[in-house]
Amino acid sequence: MSKKGYRVAVVGVTGAVGQEILRVFERRKFPISELVPLASERSVGTEVEFAGTKHKVRKLEAAAFTGVDVAFFSAGATRSREFIPIARKAGAVVVDNSSAFRMDPQVPLVVPEVNGDLLNTKPGLIANPNCSAAILAVALAPLHRLAGLESVVVATYQSASGAGAKAMAELDQQVRDFAAGKKLQAEVFPHVLAFNLFSHNSPVGQDGYNEEEQKIVEETRKIFSLPKLRMVPTCVRVPVPRAHSEAVVARFMRPISLAEANRALGGASGVRVVDHPEKNLFPMPSHASGELDVLVGRIREVEGDPNSIAFFVSGDQLLKGAAWNAVQIAEELVKRGGLPA
Amino acid sequence: MSKKGYRVAVVGVTGAVGQEILRVFERRKFPISELVPLASERSVGTEVEFAGTKHKVRKLEAAAFTGVDVAFFSAGATRSREFIPIARKAGAVVVDNSSAFRMDPQVPLVVPEVNGDLLNTKPGLIANPNCSAAILAVALAPLHRLAGLESVVVATYQSASGAGAKAMAELDQQVRDFAAGKKLQAEVFPHVLAFNLFSHNSPVGQDGYNEEEQKIVEETRKIFSLPKLRMVPTCVRVPVPRAHSEAVVARFMRPISLAEANRALGGASGVRVVDHPEKNLFPMPSHASGELDVLVGRIREVEGDPNSIAFFVSGDQLLKGAAWNAVQIAEELVKRGGLPA
Repeated sequence: MSKKGYRVAVVGVTGAVGQEILRVFERRKFPISELVPLASERSVGTEVEFAGTKHKVRKLEAAAFTGVDVAFFSAGATRSREFIPIARKAGAVVVDNSSAFRMDPQVPLVVPEVNGDLLNTKPGLIANPNCSAAILAVALAPLHRLAGLESVVVATYQSASGAGAKAMAELDQQVRDFAAGKKLQAEVFPHVLAFNLFSHNSPVGQDGYNEEEQKIVEETRKIFSLPKLRMVPTCVRVPVPRAHSEAVVARFMRPISLAEANRALGGASGVRVVDHPEKNLFPMPSHASGELDVLVGRIREVEGDPNSIAFFVSGDQLLKGAAWNAVQIAEELVKRGGLPA
Repeated sequence: MSKKGYRVAVVGVTGAVGQEILRVFERRKFPISELVPLASERSVGTEVEFAGTKHKVRKLEAAAFTGVDVAFFSAGATRSREFIPIARKAGAVVVDNSSAFRMDPQVPLVVPEVNGDLLNTKPGLIANPNCSAAILAVALAPLHRLAGLESVVVATYQSASGAGAKAMAELDQQVRDFAAGKKLQAEVFPHVLAFNLFSHNSPVGQDGYNEEEQKIVEETRKIFSLPKLRMVPTCVRVPVPRAHSEAVVARFMRPISLAEANRALGGASGVRVVDHPEKNLFPMPSHASGELDVLVGRIREVEGDPNSIAFFVSGDQLLKGAAWNAVQIAEELVKRGGLPA
């Protein structure tokens, strides 16, 4: 690892994910010689905290990327499409948290625990997957290595954070309004989330699957290099602030015993098994929040189908679902010589 | 229907389900000549409202069933096992909301939309299913009639009400404590429910499935007379007050097109289709609460498997999941001559 550290740009630094990226840099001691905090015009002049110092937010513009070694983009697909080519031209390696390039066949879509080897080619642009897909992939990976994935049925319990800081604030406000006897209002989401849940608030396609579900299918296929993987996702938003959970039934090419599944998951990097039936303690968003690992539990066999395993996973949407996976990609690039020292 | 009406006992009348049974009687104008409100010793002396009048709660004891035509039990399996034989001996027809007799081969387990025909034999004791099983059965029934159920994968989003009035109050209090800046406490549930979710709080068996999941499997098999039906349930408690939701992928004996599924569900009794992709409006617990029908939406085909249909259902746990199904059983008994006029 470089002694001096890197010049690191964070695009969308004031957003929920941008802020988490700064926290993950601190937590992981990512080697940074200079932070370049970028955001849209309206955030310019505000300050962000990083490593005990306040940093003035700068305007996202072409000139901002001069001399940047690595840029983390988390400002939506439109900004990524506009500014990533500029950042690349300026010589920066880019990790993009948006959906802009995820399905581009030239761009690796990386969950380090699954397909970190793609970083050996030292790509200049790496896409960070959809949050639900990343969390799911970490849990599926050790079982896939064991017996080969054949199909996945997944129902999600997705937190407000997936829709950004404003959505988290809306849930918070709804609950406070409830306590104050006021009427609950929804603006960020199409429906009130407090004391309720609803189908994921992304546009629904002709086939009845919403964009979130489409992302889970396409991205999981790409991450595992299984273009024909059968998946049936149902994505649901629940009144939880920041960790996503998923109820999964996965089928494999050969039988997997419970003991094998437990062994594989217990030894898997990025996974922490939380499976305590005697205490009725299994993965919960309240425990997953703030954790880099995803929590996996309720691991069980499926009656009448020895090839299937069911489990439940909770992972921090802002961390493994976004900021941590992005920084982890950069750490792996450093290890593999993909970031010039 | 009898002009005079029936002498009707409600056992557990002060509980969440008992109270809903009274409301459903009023809503459905169930013909009642005398209400016999029963509860355990500690509720004796309190009053319940019914049809604009206050009724003193009486002690649950053998003598209370004298002259009762029909008794609704909703006071837990232990009380049902003790007092149902007594009520039967006193000549009452019994609808039992507890799990005590559900799997007794002599006792019909009835969801009227599915197997109401069992009431033609005028049984003296009818079991009311588990809430999640009842709601699921209503949605599966029209598709099963169409093409024959083969397997079901279901992930639930279960409300606090399934654990009774105290659990609903605990969720309410947690949210108020949050707004007041206090620490959130859990006593009824093993974990804090507000802003969180957790695996269903019932004991977990040797096979890793909890009792709620076991009930869904066994009861669905019994309701549909499909003793070998393959089911993979995952039951999860979510911070919602009173309606359960379920993400379902069901496989059938022959292919079902989306048009067929929509037609079958659209015309099914007990079902209201809520499927508006353009508004991102699908079944939600906030809309299902207070409704007798279960809401079904997100009806869609499954890529690569023409025999499967996916959908999402929300139903009021206290109504179709308990009180309404019980009163509906009694209404059907009246129609079929199973309650002497």
